[in-house]
Amino acid sequence: MAIKHGKQTYMLSKKIYINETAAIVGPREKDGPLGKYFDQSEREDFGEDTWEKGEAHYVNATFNKLMSKIDVDTEKIDCIFSGDLLNQCMASAIGLKNSGVPYLGLYGACSTMVESMLCASLCIDGGGMTNAVAITSSNFCSAEKQYRFPMELGCQRTPTAQWTVTASGAVYLSSQKSGAPADMKPYINAVTTGKIENYKINDVNNMGAVMAPACASTIISHLNDLSRQPDYYDMILTGDLGETGSNLLCDILRMHDINIEDKHQDCGKLIFDSVRQGTKAGGSGCGCAAAVFTSYIYELLKTLQIHHLLFVATGALISPVMVKQNEDLLGIAHAVSIEI
Amino acid sequence: MAIKHGKQTYMLSKKIYINETAAIVGPREKDGPLGKYFDQSEREDFGEDTWEKGEAHYVNATFNKLMSKIDVDTEKIDCIFSGDLLNQCMASAIGLKNSGVPYLGLYGACSTMVESMLCASLCIDGGGMTNAVAITSSNFCSAEKQYRFPMELGCQRTPTAQWTVTASGAVYLSSQKSGAPADMKPYINAVTTGKIENYKINDVNNMGAVMAPACASTIISHLNDLSRQPDYYDMILTGDLGETGSNLLCDILRMHDINIEDKHQDCGKLIFDSVRQGTKAGGSGCGCAAAVFTSYIYELLKTLQIHHLLFVATGALISPVMVKQNEDLLGIAHAVSIEI
Repeated sequence: MAIKHGKQTYMLSKKIYINETAAIVGPREKDGPLGKYFDQSEREDFGEDTWEKGEAHYVNATFNKLMSKIDVDTEKIDCIFSGDLLNQCMASAIGLKNSGVPYLGLYGACSTMVESMLCASLCIDGGGMTNAVAITSSNFCSAEKQYRFPMELGCQRTPTAQWTVTASGAVYLSSQKSGAPADMKPYINAVTTGKIENYKINDVNNMGAVMAPACASTIISHLNDLSRQPDYYDMILTGDLGETGSNLLCDILRMHDINIEDKHQDCGKLIFDSVRQGTKAGGSGCGCAAAVFTSYIYELLKTLQIHHLLFVATGALISPVMVKQNEDLLGIAHAVSIEI
Repeated sequence: MAIKHGKQTYMLSKKIYINETAAIVGPREKDGPLGKYFDQSEREDFGEDTWEKGEAHYVNATFNKLMSKIDVDTEKIDCIFSGDLLNQCMASAIGLKNSGVPYLGLYGACSTMVESMLCASLCIDGGGMTNAVAITSSNFCSAEKQYRFPMELGCQRTPTAQWTVTASGAVYLSSQKSGAPADMKPYINAVTTGKIENYKINDVNNMGAVMAPACASTIISHLNDLSRQPDYYDMILTGDLGETGSNLLCDILRMHDINIEDKHQDCGKLIFDSVRQGTKAGGSGCGCAAAVFTSYIYELLKTLQIHHLLFVATGALISPVMVKQNEDLLGIAHAVSIEI
């Protein structure tokens, strides 16, 4: 069983292998710097008559893509851990309603990809599960409609605003390594649970500032709990802080004498060429960290270009109603340590 | 570590003690048949200027009530598992933002109370956690506003409609029994994960019909997985099927030659006197199963009036947008087996 270290971190007793991944993205993501790494690209609406149904279609297609890439029957999947940004997590529920697999719904805003990998890892390590799928999604159009303004208004965006990624990403996690015996697969060996952080920020166009303190807190806890230095990792990958949040993260960590600048990458910065694509501070949404990790980063791991990865997905626990009621916007970040 | 039985059930290797509970309810719940069992009752808005802030206040106060009843510092709580019905689960996030405890957000609609107890149990059993809190909430006014009609309209309700319970309930789970050595505490010893069920129902005023098939499916899986008969249990407690859903559940199970009528109770039916209180088919909402279990049912267990309980919370995975877009309404149910 897992062993708790410090206040928030669990060292797993098993290697939880990331045996396979799948990512399906929208046209803007396909056109971005990581375009060639994704399994498939589709229209924003994926041929459906609403954006919400389109997002659910992304989830469904990504799950099916993952299952087609692995030689495992859905009967062998013990549980799906899933969530998204839509009200009542409808993209996950609709997208997976025909899977026939036990389903645990999660909500961690944009931190959901790592939250689901974390929960799945703990449940596989000691909870009696063997195989699980973690999957999340987001969609630019359904998110704009729900969180910001009707698409038809064509509203301008502030420089700190982020662009919700249209994508779904999925990982197949197992305590058993798949493939030939000589194949190397990345595995999760430690997880760090996040706490809600409140820096009393209420600018809804600056999610990076909401999430950066939570991200810093989780990274500090992770390093302290395991007595590790940032040097332990080849890459510290944050979910979707974007340009503004990434700068803030490095600033906050520097105040704690932690320097991660030479190994820090952010999924929100990686997925778009923000100057050419006009995506302001970068990508965001559950699908951002999910799609970047399951494509480009997974490739870096498999090809041994990185051996030790700390993957920290960050979420802004906000709702439009909270914003209207002048509540502080809250941040959270969960982390998984991945090695190969 | 837990052992998987059948397709959906996990027998825990440890007793996960339900060491303490807390429940705070609204005025209608206090006035109902279980009124004397709750820790505290408050106004629907809990003195806040919005219903959403009121619901968050319920969560916060219930968490604090639980902590005041146990002799454990929040530092010793490894994780809070929490969720609610509000968009982006804002009641949980706001209510627990100052707890300083690692937080895993869940979304299982009205099944969230058992989903959080299930996840916490698996994480304690083998995931390295020792102590966890599971907490959920719902609020009649914030739910009506979000899911149905503005309160000010005073809309009439159909006979199959359910009345969202205003309440928050919390349990303190631990692998270590608290209290004097001779004290007996109920414990969770098995959990069954639920699958999404789609009976293609689209009447948003009949959530009982949406959830009953999922509830039946989980009960059947649980009994099959553990080779148990309903007689094993003194009580099979469902979350919030209400009158309509409870009848449907018994009908569906009878078609599978399973008869639970003499031991079936439903939190949605127990919490209100529907004739006197005009609550139609009964109570619903995350707070319903949470408040009934953490008060009356916990008392029945502690006083050994029941020894074996199967607690199955049911959720309707729906959103107002799904309803407008003619999506099928989906059901899910998770179960925990509790003994003393």
